[in-house]
Amino acid sequence: MRATVMRQGALVVDTVPDPEPGPGEVLVRTLACGVCGSDLHALRHADKVVDAARDSGMPFTMDLSRDVVMGHEFCAEIVDFGPDTQRALRPGTRVVSMPLAAGPDGVHTVGYSNDYPGGYGEAMRLCEPFLLPVPNGLATEHAALTEPMAVGVHAVAKARLEPGDTALVVGCGPVGLAIVAALRLRGAEPIVAADFSPARRALAERMGAHVVVDPRRERAIDAWQRVARGPAVVFECVGVPGLLDQIMRDAPRGARIVVAGVCMEDDRIRPILGINKELSVQFVLGYTPEEFAATLADIAEGRIPVAPLVTGRVGVGGVPGAFETLARPEAHAKILVEPWRE
Amino acid sequence: MRATVMRQGALVVDTVPDPEPGPGEVLVRTLACGVCGSDLHALRHADKVVDAARDSGMPFTMDLSRDVVMGHEFCAEIVDFGPDTQRALRPGTRVVSMPLAAGPDGVHTVGYSNDYPGGYGEAMRLCEPFLLPVPNGLATEHAALTEPMAVGVHAVAKARLEPGDTALVVGCGPVGLAIVAALRLRGAEPIVAADFSPARRALAERMGAHVVVDPRRERAIDAWQRVARGPAVVFECVGVPGLLDQIMRDAPRGARIVVAGVCMEDDRIRPILGINKELSVQFVLGYTPEEFAATLADIAEGRIPVAPLVTGRVGVGGVPGAFETLARPEAHAKILVEPWRE
Repeated sequence: MRATVMRQGALVVDTVPDPEPGPGEVLVRTLACGVCGSDLHALRHADKVVDAARDSGMPFTMDLSRDVVMGHEFCAEIVDFGPDTQRALRPGTRVVSMPLAAGPDGVHTVGYSNDYPGGYGEAMRLCEPFLLPVPNGLATEHAALTEPMAVGVHAVAKARLEPGDTALVVGCGPVGLAIVAALRLRGAEPIVAADFSPARRALAERMGAHVVVDPRRERAIDAWQRVARGPAVVFECVGVPGLLDQIMRDAPRGARIVVAGVCMEDDRIRPILGINKELSVQFVLGYTPEEFAATLADIAEGRIPVAPLVTGRVGVGGVPGAFETLARPEAHAKILVEPWRE
Repeated sequence: MRATVMRQGALVVDTVPDPEPGPGEVLVRTLACGVCGSDLHALRHADKVVDAARDSGMPFTMDLSRDVVMGHEFCAEIVDFGPDTQRALRPGTRVVSMPLAAGPDGVHTVGYSNDYPGGYGEAMRLCEPFLLPVPNGLATEHAALTEPMAVGVHAVAKARLEPGDTALVVGCGPVGLAIVAALRLRGAEPIVAADFSPARRALAERMGAHVVVDPRRERAIDAWQRVARGPAVVFECVGVPGLLDQIMRDAPRGARIVVAGVCMEDDRIRPILGINKELSVQFVLGYTPEEFAATLADIAEGRIPVAPLVTGRVGVGGVPGAFETLARPEAHAKILVEPWRE
């Protein structure tokens, strides 16, 4: 099949072996797959991703000397079934799935595995029990946003919001926007969102932010202070070194910081700031199966508005360019890869 | 009065002006005052303490060019009353108090203030509303441990323990030992405590630890793993750079880390370890008035065993030596300053 491949630290477009579904697995045709900031990180910091995963006991079992087809935010169509499958869904059914697979050597993440190619290729092998049919009437490109939106739903769940808590979302890339949407879904009000980019601030408003702030004009925490009704819950959605320390410096006493931005590099903090203000820092990742399924339903029912997020579409050949574009993300939120597209 | 004074970054024994109680304040004679690790930190990192306090909006309003009499873990005896006082307690009454004072220029911490000398001097001025009489029969030296024990009670409260949570206490200095005692008070079981020092491990057992571990022989987390009945709650009670990162590396998925050790220096962490394992980090400081009062009662009723903690007694002249001793704390837990002692 045609795929965009991570090979020797670079992205190349090539023909690679078709995936073959094993026991309990289903062969699917990729319809759409979002480009995730984590993929940009993984390309840039591949060694660190693998090392950190190993240190943490995580299923990112990539051998970087072999090809990896990334892409874990997908909507696909059932093509065929491997052995030992239930086959409750028919071929042609559109599905989404958590990007996890149970291989004979342990758990893999689809899109961060040598054996489970992700959605930057024309086909994938997926675990049948994880498949969720896409409700009729839900556009494929919106179904493909289930995964990134579920990340926001999970981050907000981990924040354990209480009445009066007032959220500040720092960074309005896809993760920040998903968190804004999830906060709105839970009725949080007001929601304050900060980003240097005017386009992203506009997107944050469309996703449900009540107040948006340009950190060049005003400190995000000052904008938050003007409207806050209770304790601060600050979502760090950027993932660059230094930002956590900056948030710890600016946060009010007792603030809870939820770290949803993925910083692959070492970071420096001043613990005394956390101590003096009794801050808490909750790191988050992923979602539960229940959150993933609920997110699909919330998108299908229009409770999470995803249409504004799709800002570009490319074929397999356009993936390297999309990565370049997203490194300067002023205008973009989510670029979808549609491998069937020329 | 005679006092040990922090002056130009050093401790000197000198005669300083007697404190004069202002409105709402009470003059007390210091009976006993514990030497706190925070005081050692403050002497070594005075500039950083002041800067961090300013950055965090904290009441450590010290002018380092002027004298500071430290000491905030005290038991004292009422001598006289300032204007506008209620005088419900009689002169001669033994009292403990949270080390806070409301001066005309804002809140001060007794013992970290130029205007409110702490217990390393013969006398103090304290806020009358904070005074708690020491129950009859409770030894002065044990009452003086109310403050450090309240720190442990608060840290454990902030950990929001749930049934099955299994605690690991890293570092068995006074803060770690107070946390062990507070865990035991709440019925947590098993309690695992780690320290390089055999004397401190023995103290941890006397304070209520069920399992103690020498990190030179076994990783603390491995000892924890052998007895754990549920999620990990790890108390960081050392406060040196690098330890938080090490705990994040070793902690199991979903662990909650409570940072009670005061690290005054910059620290380096790998956020990806926190992300991959969805760790949370709760920084803690101090206690509430309710926790402070409850701790005094728990000590008086024998529910918190403090007798083993007192490992030394000095007069004012012995404070500089006590600081030296505590910098190599193998044999010591709490050294009490008794300013009336020659």
